Amino acid sequence: MQQGQGPEKLPGNKASRVWIEDIKPRIDCGRFPIKRAVGEKVRVTASVFADGHDLLKAVLDVRSMEEEWTELPMTCLAIDLWAAEFQVETPGMYRYRIKAWVDHFSTWQRDLAKKFEAGQGGASELLEGAAMIQAAADRARTPDSEWLGTVAVMLQSDDPRENLVARATAADIGAMMDRYPDRSREAVSDPPLTVTVEPPIAAFSAWYEIFPRSVISDPGRSGTFKDTEKLIPEIVRMGFDVLYFPPIHPIGRTNRKGRNNVLAGAAEDPGSPWAIGSREGGHKSVHPDLGTLEDFAHLVASARSQRLEIALDIAFQCSPDHPYVREHPEWFRHRPDGTIKFAENPPKKYEDIYPFSFDCEEWQSLWHELKSIVLFWIEHGVRIFRVDNPHTKPLPFWEWLIAGVRREYPEVVFLSEAFTRPRMMYALAKAGFSQSYTYFTWRNTRYDLTAYLRELVNTDVREYFRPNFFANTPDILPEYLQFGGRPAFISRLVLAATLSSCYGIYSGYELAESEAVPGTEEYLNSEKFEIKPRDWNTPGNIRAFITRINTIRRSNAALASNRRLSFYPVDNEQIIFYGKSTDDLANIILVAVNLDPHHVQEGWLEVPLEEFGISEKEVFQVHELLFDNRFLWQGRRNFVRLDPGASPAQIFLLRRKLRTERDFDYFM
Amino acid sequence: MQQGQGPEKLPGNKASRVWIEDIKPRIDCGRFPIKRAVGEKVRVTASVFADGHDLLKAVLDVRSMEEEWTELPMTCLAIDLWAAEFQVETPGMYRYRIKAWVDHFSTWQRDLAKKFEAGQGGASELLEGAAMIQAAADRARTPDSEWLGTVAVMLQSDDPRENLVARATAADIGAMMDRYPDRSREAVSDPPLTVTVEPPIAAFSAWYEIFPRSVISDPGRSGTFKDTEKLIPEIVRMGFDVLYFPPIHPIGRTNRKGRNNVLAGAAEDPGSPWAIGSREGGHKSVHPDLGTLEDFAHLVASARSQRLEIALDIAFQCSPDHPYVREHPEWFRHRPDGTIKFAENPPKKYEDIYPFSFDCEEWQSLWHELKSIVLFWIEHGVRIFRVDNPHTKPLPFWEWLIAGVRREYPEVVFLSEAFTRPRMMYALAKAGFSQSYTYFTWRNTRYDLTAYLRELVNTDVREYFRPNFFANTPDILPEYLQFGGRPAFISRLVLAATLSSCYGIYSGYELAESEAVPGTEEYLNSEKFEIKPRDWNTPGNIRAFITRINTIRRSNAALASNRRLSFYPVDNEQIIFYGKSTDDLANIILVAVNLDPHHVQEGWLEVPLEEFGISEKEVFQVHELLFDNRFLWQGRRNFVRLDPGASPAQIFLLRRKLRTERDFDYFM
Repeated sequence: MQQGQGPEKLPGNKASRVWIEDIKPRIDCGRFPIKRAVGEKVRVTASVFADGHDLLKAVLDVRSMEEEWTELPMTCLAIDLWAAEFQVETPGMYRYRIKAWVDHFSTWQRDLAKKFEAGQGGASELLEGAAMIQAAADRARTPDSEWLGTVAVMLQSDDPRENLVARATAADIGAMMDRYPDRSREAVSDPPLTVTVEPPIAAFSAWYEIFPRSVISDPGRSGTFKDTEKLIPEIVRMGFDVLYFPPIHPIGRTNRKGRNNVLAGAAEDPGSPWAIGSREGGHKSVHPDLGTLEDFAHLVASARSQRLEIALDIAFQCSPDHPYVREHPEWFRHRPDGTIKFAENPPKKYEDIYPFSFDCEEWQSLWHELKSIVLFWIEHGVRIFRVDNPHTKPLPFWEWLIAGVRREYPEVVFLSEAFTRPRMMYALAKAGFSQSYTYFTWRNTRYDLTAYLRELVNTDVREYFRPNFFANTPDILPEYLQFGGRPAFISRLVLAATLSSCYGIYSGYELAESEAVPGTEEYLNSEKFEIKPRDWNTPGNIRAFITRINTIRRSNAALASNRRLSFYPVDNEQIIFYGKSTDDLANIILVAVNLDPHHVQEGWLEVPLEEFGISEKEVFQVHELLFDNRFLWQGRRNFVRLDPGASPAQIFLLRRKLRTERDFDYFM
Repeated sequence: MQQGQGPEKLPGNKASRVWIEDIKPRIDCGRFPIKRAVGEKVRVTASVFADGHDLLKAVLDVRSMEEEWTELPMTCLAIDLWAAEFQVETPGMYRYRIKAWVDHFSTWQRDLAKKFEAGQGGASELLEGAAMIQAAADRARTPDSEWLGTVAVMLQSDDPRENLVARATAADIGAMMDRYPDRSREAVSDPPLTVTVEPPIAAFSAWYEIFPRSVISDPGRSGTFKDTEKLIPEIVRMGFDVLYFPPIHPIGRTNRKGRNNVLAGAAEDPGSPWAIGSREGGHKSVHPDLGTLEDFAHLVASARSQRLEIALDIAFQCSPDHPYVREHPEWFRHRPDGTIKFAENPPKKYEDIYPFSFDCEEWQSLWHELKSIVLFWIEHGVRIFRVDNPHTKPLPFWEWLIAGVRREYPEVVFLSEAFTRPRMMYALAKAGFSQSYTYFTWRNTRYDLTAYLRELVNTDVREYFRPNFFANTPDILPEYLQFGGRPAFISRLVLAATLSSCYGIYSGYELAESEAVPGTEEYLNSEKFEIKPRDWNTPGNIRAFITRINTIRRSNAALASNRRLSFYPVDNEQIIFYGKSTDDLANIILVAVNLDPHHVQEGWLEVPLEEFGISEKEVFQVHELLFDNRFLWQGRRNFVRLDPGASPAQIFLLRRKLRTERDFDYFM
């Protein structure tokens, strides 16, 4: 029964008795980095243990790209479970690993004390300790070396045993010995795990999407970059951080789609911005009707000076008129007769689009060219990209492109516009996308919202997938908005902006535009195929509401992260009640939303007093931030009435009562 | 902002569009093998997906030690979730991995059919398919090559298009193309994962523990191997598979412990078998009072001929009189004065035991010698080892020892006797132990039993940790048995034997021995320190019950595995109700146990009809196997009354009613 009997390899000399297991966070066995934004923390836990009863020490070893490894002491939280945390400070790549060793000296101190209490132990035990201290003295620098040497000698003296034991077990010796540990047999959790650190905007941002061609001051022509630049102060006033443009490149003429996506467009139809490329240029050009590259760069710089970032659309596909089609036919798929194949998902056809063939013979030159497009726009000031349909391009391509861009420009942010199967959504995030579109628009009931958010924020998903809750997009006018009226727009806005630290709306939302192609989620007269000027002062607009929400987001740190989102009970299924807080509970936000846009709903909310350290008897103030009302609540159960006609949502800032003589001042 | 800007490496030419993720089962990222016994199956699942809408194919690639890789087709169970299973046939190491690729031909067939239905597609599509078929023909062997070539030509003919499409999308072409797939860009889930395959007894066994020295036919002397050999037919009749002996080696005299663990033993005290080694020899010798090595080998062979395996105790420690102490002082820990340190866990001392120093300077020679002890007993016929206190020796030592032994003798089984912190219990199992002692003796309520079993059988733990539910041991007489009387012994036996496919009792259990050192779980007059003859015919003994239980275990395949253990509701918290079944539901066992040994308990059991495919209206028979009673039940809720005086447990074999004219025969 002898099988493959190789030489008997003993574990290497460095084989450690200490085992390190189950390090968290870790994605797919370390194959992918976790994500953090500058200023965020990484809390690392691991199982660390060894045979027998010896005491251990463990450190979390951390390094950012250009620095040395730094060791942070880990704390033992529970049996064999250790933890430590670090904060990330600069965009780029951080690494972390764990090191642990048997702490013979602390073990000796503990055992000596136990023996002494039991009336055991003698000179022999003290000599053992003295030897360890002398060994540390030999490793130590002056003056520590001398100090330790003196202690070692003292422990071998004839002083009364109780004095010697007291000296040997004193904390100052433990602390000094910790500076010169014997780590010859330490365990290391190689290979190191990685963190991609991105700028704060990757983790906390409010997005607004607009078609620059629709920003018309002078009817009868296309809006321009210059027109759009004039609008920026107003967008900034509404509180947005990112202004996202659909593709701004020349649009193809061949098979151009007309209004409402009809096959044969009229001559005057402007075409879909995603049908990229014409005689005027391709992915590195701007549509002449919008202005010039210089106008664009001016707009980007002007926006940035007002703290607004411009996000560009990256749609890697071509109209039949794109210069690439002529110059690089080898990058496309061909029919047996040599013609290029348009995009299709049988029986659907997209005759105005040629997809790239990512695994063509010349894939290497194609991939480099596509990456150069991203670098081109970075060089023109863009730092944020919204990537169109990334799930129809190979994952290895994105992993390569994003890693390459990030090596040079770690501050660049990528948003994945994938609406596809869950595993692909998550794989794109693992492959490097900073943020991701989600299923949010199709989660409308309390059960669905709660289940989905728990998946996003209570599982490993939160370590790599940053949701961006767009409440609508040019492709998605959800049924809930089609039929829920203005209250639906308000409640979905509150949900998007408070459930997710990143959210967005596409223009028209502020006017509660809700007319769809019947039976579909497509906008009627979709802006994808025509220029669509809007009057922001239309009666019924919710701009003031949007502005208020964005102000609340910016002034409440609890809303800048999703990690501490929790759902709480309400006795009415039509009301959803949840909260977010900062780690230190200095900021606690509670949100109640009526999910029924048609009727008043009321119910008893259950406030998790123990989570906030509030006693059943304590009176606390909840400050409703949308309408600036203040209520005094007491105990777990508190009543709300949510009238969609007034506001379907309430956002409460929980203010603890100060324990001073001047309580009354506080409530003013 | 340029950071570590290395050369721009493109993914290799083999970069596949297909991603393989989340392979299960997999322990600690593949660091440790999963475990199976011969005849068991490994069901592997994985997420497999690619960009776009193309169809994929995936195979599970499996190999046993000496064979070639074999590919098994995987099935797509749900979106992007694939599965396949294989059965393991021989002890040793198996490997498995997944390969997947884009199936361009199936994708083409699907799209062609869709286009044809929509009135699209023409000669161009057919030519594409013909080209793929011709390429496969070039790769194929005759006559497949000719067959494919003919089809390729035919698809380019002038036949009516509907005929050509019907031909092109026919199943026989798909099947033939599957034999010659284009796998140039396939993804492989390297490195392979591993399975340790052990003999069936590793997964299904009833253990009985006995001290051979207590098997006395002739009072006044120690029992011998020959005495024990005479007892084997009776132990076999009781239905046990494994007979386990505490250490059988010479026992030290220095600091020998006396009756009830007193420090200074009397001259006639036999000492603890775990204080191994004396002038007469060490770990490779037998105690002269028990007989000779030849007697032992005879006993092992005789037992095996009756289908009983002898398990030996491996306790890696020495009495001060062990020959190793004299010959290899370098393997032990020393005091500063050069004397050897006895075992201690301050303030507890074990003066009759010297522990090995596993990380001494001469650790390599020590480790080799210890391994040679295991090999020595294997050469004397032993195939099962119960390892004493493995958690006080380094994990890398066990991993090395067990892997080395298993390479030569894959049929050898190791039981870990660790009662320690959970992570160490599990780490020992990962390091290679076949079976493990558990916390079972301390789990006595329905809540505790259910929670513990769910951890063992419903999580990844089941892939590497095989519980052996010992109901008592020489070290553990649990409180429940001390105060529960005979009913407690019966109910704990039923729980151990039906909850876990491996279970055991230590002798004395059959007599319901329950006298403890007050306030402890130690047996009064513990057999560890004295010879303890027993009369198996003592009134009140439960031998008949034990025999019945073991018979039920052997004749009901459902009880041979823990994977399909489920707990079901009862409206009385004192009753636990659970079931096991075979994959094909050919054998379904339901067990109800009254956990209260003092009172009659009754309640309504909830039978999970849907799990067994039984309708609410169907009448089914439950055959109570302990007392051979049969009941007809109907519907979900059924009543039991469990009287501890009669039997605190019932074991039901669920018999489906046969749908024939002769139903009445069946119920006879």
